[in-house]
Amino acid sequence: MKRLDEAPENESRGAMSCERENQWETSRNDGPLLDQQWKPCQRSRAFVKVCLLKLRCVLVSVCGMEWYGYAALGVVTAFLSFLMDLSVAKLLRAQQWLYVRLEGHGLLQFLCWTLYPASLCALASSFSHSVCPFSTGSGVPEVRAMLAGVEMPHYLSLTNMFAKFLGLICTLAAGSTVFLGKVGPFVHLSTMVGAYLSHLCTLIQGNKEDKASGKMLVTAAAVGVASCFGAPISGVLFSVEVMCSHFALRDYCPCFFSAACGALTFRLFSVWSGDGETLQALFKTKFSEALPFYPLEILVFALLGLLCGAVSCCYLFCHRWILNFTKTNPFLTKMLTTEKGLYSGVVVFLLASLTFPHSAGRYMASEYTMKQLLTSLLDSRQWGSPAHNASVGQEPEPWSEWGASGSPVFVSLTVFLLMKLWMTVAACTLPLPAGYVMPVFIYGAAVGRLVGEGLAYVSSTGGNPGQQWASVNPGGYALAGAAAFSGAVTHTLSPALLALELTGQFSYAAPILLATLLANALARSGSRPSFYDALSVSKRLPHLPSLLKACPRLSSAPIGPLLNPKAALLHKAAGPAELLHVANASTDPEIPVVDSLACVSENASWSKYISVLLQAPAKHLDEACCLHATSVLLSPHSTVQEAHGVLSLLGAQTVFVADRGRLAGLVTWSEMKRILEELAKEI
Amino acid sequence: MKRLDEAPENESRGAMSCERENQWETSRNDGPLLDQQWKPCQRSRAFVKVCLLKLRCVLVSVCGMEWYGYAALGVVTAFLSFLMDLSVAKLLRAQQWLYVRLEGHGLLQFLCWTLYPASLCALASSFSHSVCPFSTGSGVPEVRAMLAGVEMPHYLSLTNMFAKFLGLICTLAAGSTVFLGKVGPFVHLSTMVGAYLSHLCTLIQGNKEDKASGKMLVTAAAVGVASCFGAPISGVLFSVEVMCSHFALRDYCPCFFSAACGALTFRLFSVWSGDGETLQALFKTKFSEALPFYPLEILVFALLGLLCGAVSCCYLFCHRWILNFTKTNPFLTKMLTTEKGLYSGVVVFLLASLTFPHSAGRYMASEYTMKQLLTSLLDSRQWGSPAHNASVGQEPEPWSEWGASGSPVFVSLTVFLLMKLWMTVAACTLPLPAGYVMPVFIYGAAVGRLVGEGLAYVSSTGGNPGQQWASVNPGGYALAGAAAFSGAVTHTLSPALLALELTGQFSYAAPILLATLLANALARSGSRPSFYDALSVSKRLPHLPSLLKACPRLSSAPIGPLLNPKAALLHKAAGPAELLHVANASTDPEIPVVDSLACVSENASWSKYISVLLQAPAKHLDEACCLHATSVLLSPHSTVQEAHGVLSLLGAQTVFVADRGRLAGLVTWSEMKRILEELAKEI
Repeated sequence: MKRLDEAPENESRGAMSCERENQWETSRNDGPLLDQQWKPCQRSRAFVKVCLLKLRCVLVSVCGMEWYGYAALGVVTAFLSFLMDLSVAKLLRAQQWLYVRLEGHGLLQFLCWTLYPASLCALASSFSHSVCPFSTGSGVPEVRAMLAGVEMPHYLSLTNMFAKFLGLICTLAAGSTVFLGKVGPFVHLSTMVGAYLSHLCTLIQGNKEDKASGKMLVTAAAVGVASCFGAPISGVLFSVEVMCSHFALRDYCPCFFSAACGALTFRLFSVWSGDGETLQALFKTKFSEALPFYPLEILVFALLGLLCGAVSCCYLFCHRWILNFTKTNPFLTKMLTTEKGLYSGVVVFLLASLTFPHSAGRYMASEYTMKQLLTSLLDSRQWGSPAHNASVGQEPEPWSEWGASGSPVFVSLTVFLLMKLWMTVAACTLPLPAGYVMPVFIYGAAVGRLVGEGLAYVSSTGGNPGQQWASVNPGGYALAGAAAFSGAVTHTLSPALLALELTGQFSYAAPILLATLLANALARSGSRPSFYDALSVSKRLPHLPSLLKACPRLSSAPIGPLLNPKAALLHKAAGPAELLHVANASTDPEIPVVDSLACVSENASWSKYISVLLQAPAKHLDEACCLHATSVLLSPHSTVQEAHGVLSLLGAQTVFVADRGRLAGLVTWSEMKRILEELAKEI
Repeated sequence: MKRLDEAPENESRGAMSCERENQWETSRNDGPLLDQQWKPCQRSRAFVKVCLLKLRCVLVSVCGMEWYGYAALGVVTAFLSFLMDLSVAKLLRAQQWLYVRLEGHGLLQFLCWTLYPASLCALASSFSHSVCPFSTGSGVPEVRAMLAGVEMPHYLSLTNMFAKFLGLICTLAAGSTVFLGKVGPFVHLSTMVGAYLSHLCTLIQGNKEDKASGKMLVTAAAVGVASCFGAPISGVLFSVEVMCSHFALRDYCPCFFSAACGALTFRLFSVWSGDGETLQALFKTKFSEALPFYPLEILVFALLGLLCGAVSCCYLFCHRWILNFTKTNPFLTKMLTTEKGLYSGVVVFLLASLTFPHSAGRYMASEYTMKQLLTSLLDSRQWGSPAHNASVGQEPEPWSEWGASGSPVFVSLTVFLLMKLWMTVAACTLPLPAGYVMPVFIYGAAVGRLVGEGLAYVSSTGGNPGQQWASVNPGGYALAGAAAFSGAVTHTLSPALLALELTGQFSYAAPILLATLLANALARSGSRPSFYDALSVSKRLPHLPSLLKACPRLSSAPIGPLLNPKAALLHKAAGPAELLHVANASTDPEIPVVDSLACVSENASWSKYISVLLQAPAKHLDEACCLHATSVLLSPHSTVQEAHGVLSLLGAQTVFVADRGRLAGLVTWSEMKRILEELAKEI
């Protein structure tokens, strides 16, 4: 319940107290300087320190320190994203160069095609596992659990960031063969940067705010998406959606600010690197502006949404099945625990042999990278149209690969859809840092393209509405399909806006939103878990909404039987000896004081309280230390969900559970984490 | 703390229990039918009833009843919006037709120009005042207070809706002379439709959900914006921003769904009415897609944002001053309480005489309607450019009015900005249904246009960067200015997205967002109240965030001294006589039971409890009735803000305030409303 307008207040306070602090700090820093006579360049070091402190004063006088943190978060994440894109492009180009050079030598080409991604993925697996085992996978399920309030410090370490960043480069450099993306890991990377910057801000501010960390994590989730695609608004929406039950409005402006910084930096980097003359959308399309679609096509878009919803159910079923299979099959379980690198290498080798362009690969445009795939799918012109086929000659059309096999594009698209369905699911089992949104987005685009091409074919060959619908744009269907399918798989709506921001096309806003909503409605019906929910449950993460989706009966689970009965207690009349004993025995930050109405005492300065009590043993506990009368009581019949809601919404650290006037137990965040992990085991 | 996936559950439950209910209802309805022998067509009425019940079963089996409510909300609001646009366009055309016919008769033209809007506004004032006095003004401050949890049933009545709808048509038909918009009232209208539909849903569902009303209000706020402009996403963002402190994620999908329905319907209506061939943005622009802006122009956009922030501070100061002036000046106060119609007529007459095209009006393009003004300001071509001037001839350019006076466009724009500043502020005092966002949006567009035209002039006449920046687009600056200024005035970020959705231009997303963020930062600094905050405070609405902005010291106001000390209490050992006495004396829905730990007893079925106690007088209260052990305790030192937060976040109905083990008072929503109204009086 912090106020929204606290920034300006902080600011004025900061400006006022700045000079005083400055004097204090310089005087404090003078002392050590005099002590540390042995260090070189004392005078210049002192000068630099004074300059830095003055700079801090100037910065704080403009706005609160945390805003610089938000800006830095955006800029750093965007820089990382740009760096990754650059390295991946170079690595991909190397393979392409080698592959083209080996033209004519079938076996060598095959080896180049398969061993390059296989070794990269094996490297990514072994490297990320050996440096930090928490760096594998997407990271979004973990981020969701952290945003719900559970602390998971392992997932926010700098080592993890290092492992994830390098591992992800290797994964992405394996190209469209393994068919994995970068969004999820980038959200995770961004939270790691955010956690680090939040520590830094707290350090500079002098430990003023302890809540900054949670705020920074919410912002980081938005920045992750924004700086990955230069799409600030869908980043903010993603951040809203990823929250557990409520989005705090105090995070709204920081989210937008940081996401805008990230997106702007990402696009400026691509301008400076010579990718474009100005700041543009990542996958800029050239759809007809005058008449993007006929009003009646809205119905086709709605049907496409429903189709994508149905396909997503099928995809999610396969995904849940394979997650279960890898956990129950003894051979795979052993392989995945001991020989991660080998497993990744073998699986990617198999996938790559199937996509080899001289075998089945030519039916699924396997020579395209992920970017080229999306660009070709979003092209506004009809692929099979004879008018365009004639103009082929000088320069290959962006969709030429789709017709490389000589068969109609419908065959290629169908083969692509059928093969990639299980290949993507298989790729999800790889133990390496990888994102799963982009593959799903491209898969959805292919579904939409198939529908769009079909409609265009029917209307151009003179069906009934043929003459009227002469200019059906299959690219629009691909865009709507991409948004609808990825929205349905992840149970979110932000992909609709992501599709708009990625392409810079606003004319398709209404049909895309409609298709995404319908696909979501179908995918969410019957309380099926989403992609991330399935991952959360499979990894046994303490994330309540996922657990509830996987097992709806948990929503009525009472908190009483799950409580730890051995909680430490204090009475108001407690003496120093009892206080000391309880303080030593308990590890909780707060200890309940039970008399008439429950009160809490802070653990922070026990020694002071004890010394006060020792000096005046007649004093009661409530006279010696400050008791917090603000407390929340629950009954043992309250559900786990209610306790979780109270903890996360009120920002409370401790919730009391009282049964008919007697304290039955305490719920803290660590206790809640234990309870959730226990519940996850039961599923 | 309701679950997100409750819809599917409801659905399955609904489907199962549907048949049983159906049988029950038909049997229940057969009884009255037999009784009401005198009514005609019994057989067909029974048949229709059965059909309707079957239809309900079919509907409920697809999805929960509330989703039909959300869809209906979108469709109805969009229909109202379209109807209003149509009527307003007809009324405006009537005045234009008369004005053109009177060409040559100066006096008659003057009378037509001034009396038409004056009489319309006088009519709007008197009509809305006499039908429902709560229908004047924007309605957004009231909606914000309602969304924060305070019940204000007067503002949700159907009478209010009727008065507001007709009054708003009159206001808008007065055209650009009074310079008022429709967004705010539409948000209010939408909440009224939402409240009505929510009642209807509850009725059909058989009183299953009592919380549906609040959910529907949040959704309605999104629909209001979405169906006013066909802009669903900014509607949802507006709904997030308008919330008090937290946005519940369970409202997210309904908001999007309802907003999409509204926007789609609104655009389909305009297609069917022949306004366009397909679903398009309302103010579709034709900006250059290839190179919308140079990367360095980002800096100019940032400066424009800061400029808009500064101008907004000036505007808000004037607005606060005039709000204060109308309340303190005895003449105006009397006029505004007794002679609303006369006041509106006189003010509008004065404003209209100033904008008469043959006087000062020709310097401010006063012949344009609001729509034409925005279209002209957003035009991508440079106004003063000689290349375009040459092509004038067949058809007047969309900006021809701006050069009607013969003076350079810069003069017209400056006069427009200077005059409209105080004229808009004066129009804000009119006691009629009116929106204040659109005028601010257009004003911001004019600010941006001035900057853009200046930059285009400098670059075209060969300044240093002249050759490089040959194609500066002043329309882009107008768009950024509009978003930044309206965002700064209302302290929101959704206008940035509104600007994008209104024009269908995504290429300017990054600079618009940047300008809006900077303008917001400047406007929010120093904890100045926003436009709506000032209105809330002036109207003494019980809206805590506004009160806090107007008077920051209130954030530390303790709840203790504000409590009502005469709260009714019960003891666990209370007998039937005491229970009866307390139940009669208290009007609260819950009565606290104070023993060891505070518990609450529901007022719902007092008579049952009392009868139980009468039969077995030895029984204790906790054996006779169900006591709610789930309670929240606050200390008297807790701030009002904390109590408000607990009430709204936990959805709790009662919060106990306890001082050292003794109950000091209760906080309910009605109590909170009283406290806030008292605080508002103190400011």
